[in-house]
Amino acid sequence: MNARYDIAIIGTGPAGLEAAINAKIRNKNIIIFGSEDLSSKISKAAKVNNFLGLYNITGIQLKNSFAEHIAAMGIGIVNEKINNVYAMGDYFALMVNEKSYEAKAIILATGIEYTKPLIGEEEFLGKGVGYCATCDAPLYKGKTVVIVGYNKKSVEETNYVSELSEKTYFIPMYKGEYNLNQNVEIVNHKPLKIVGNDVVTKIILDQGEIVTDGVFMLRDSVSPSQLVPGIEIENGHIKVNRDMKTNIEGCYAAGDCTGTPYQYMKSAGEGLVAALSAVSYVDKLHDNK
Amino acid sequence: MNARYDIAIIGTGPAGLEAAINAKIRNKNIIIFGSEDLSSKISKAAKVNNFLGLYNITGIQLKNSFAEHIAAMGIGIVNEKINNVYAMGDYFALMVNEKSYEAKAIILATGIEYTKPLIGEEEFLGKGVGYCATCDAPLYKGKTVVIVGYNKKSVEETNYVSELSEKTYFIPMYKGEYNLNQNVEIVNHKPLKIVGNDVVTKIILDQGEIVTDGVFMLRDSVSPSQLVPGIEIENGHIKVNRDMKTNIEGCYAAGDCTGTPYQYMKSAGEGLVAALSAVSYVDKLHDNK
Repeated sequence: MNARYDIAIIGTGPAGLEAAINAKIRNKNIIIFGSEDLSSKISKAAKVNNFLGLYNITGIQLKNSFAEHIAAMGIGIVNEKINNVYAMGDYFALMVNEKSYEAKAIILATGIEYTKPLIGEEEFLGKGVGYCATCDAPLYKGKTVVIVGYNKKSVEETNYVSELSEKTYFIPMYKGEYNLNQNVEIVNHKPLKIVGNDVVTKIILDQGEIVTDGVFMLRDSVSPSQLVPGIEIENGHIKVNRDMKTNIEGCYAAGDCTGTPYQYMKSAGEGLVAALSAVSYVDKLHDNK
Repeated sequence: MNARYDIAIIGTGPAGLEAAINAKIRNKNIIIFGSEDLSSKISKAAKVNNFLGLYNITGIQLKNSFAEHIAAMGIGIVNEKINNVYAMGDYFALMVNEKSYEAKAIILATGIEYTKPLIGEEEFLGKGVGYCATCDAPLYKGKTVVIVGYNKKSVEETNYVSELSEKTYFIPMYKGEYNLNQNVEIVNHKPLKIVGNDVVTKIILDQGEIVTDGVFMLRDSVSPSQLVPGIEIENGHIKVNRDMKTNIEGCYAAGDCTGTPYQYMKSAGEGLVAALSAVSYVDKLHDNK
């Protein structure tokens, strides 16, 4: 059995980090997933003047002050991409490519930088559409697979799949060098729609289509409704109340993913509230045992 | 006519300050009322570890970093106590002792450190009960007045009233020297209840009572429902939605006064949201003209 954490936090922007430090101060056993570079948005900010207490700093300086803060508190970031989170009753299972984690409560601080799902993507999720090529590759032994890749890591996954599949297509969604195995066919057309009957049969492009058994969408991040099945969305954001509680018991959210304004201080404040709500939830779970 | 500000902010804790810097960045003409010492709560904090970006600092250091931030942005604090705020339609009137201010929108960031009203206090507000002795003193020429004083400033006000009134009683609610005029009678009993018919007739103490025409309650701060007549309160806090909007059009709230957790980062985050909501409201007012 996996070690079960008290609280798992997904995202390393201001919301996730402020959640982490508060949960840690309350003596919870936490794990935080995301990029060790923290938020790429912050690093890109030229000048930040509205983070109270830190006037006239660059995004990089702000990021560094965050990094120093969590380092000083002994909080390490786990650089793994959570593909799915499943509510299992009194705990959550967080699925990473080849393994999973368990936590009693979760805080979603995933930001807002995700692309809209393709038409048909959500409909055929688990029926030929997947987000983890390395996990599901064995299902496609001797079959045809299309991989829509948004980053360099997707090239690695594509190469792995191509060793098992009969035919592998790679549709790059970013510019760069694609260091692909020779048997992978690169398709430079925009994907528009995934179609099928009970399962996927093909992907429609802006020019032409590919008949396929499976489609993997390999993005940097997935939308909340893809990440946590059943989570309530309102106007494109995770619906929360003033305690940052979502519609799923034990699942909290904070930061840009809960709505506008997309601002660091708003995110951090929500991270704090989400953490204390999650702490209180975890404490109650214990009391009931 | 008074100059009309775009946004008036009441309170100089993290919520009020973060609101001020954001409203100012958005080019609004703002005024912020409160103590130049900012939040006394922060100054008293021994160590703060959960304000992201500023690890392991004392309350004084945190306060100083806030003070430097607003000073660098040219934000000055107006050290006046707002006694009442009245919604006048498309603007608010903020009543100070001898004068008033006008603002198109207001942000309440008054914190949570206020004492409960006396029994009868709210019922007889404006009917013999008042919060500003110097404003209302002329009404009590040749009459009897009771002043319940929570701070040194209340002594000054009492002396002023005693020059006009026939009889002045002072009930001190704090320990110290009371430098009162000779004709003021100090009463060292706890006030319990204000009673009357249409208007105040007497104040009941834990020992005895005083027959009087007026009662002034001179506290450091007043509760939100005393400050802003008609504001909706829920479980002892100002009711707000996720945009920090109260039930009164153009009136926003942020920080401890909106509810738990009482934490700096939560307050600051809400201050930001309240400011951007108020900015948007003010912009719409202009568009409609």
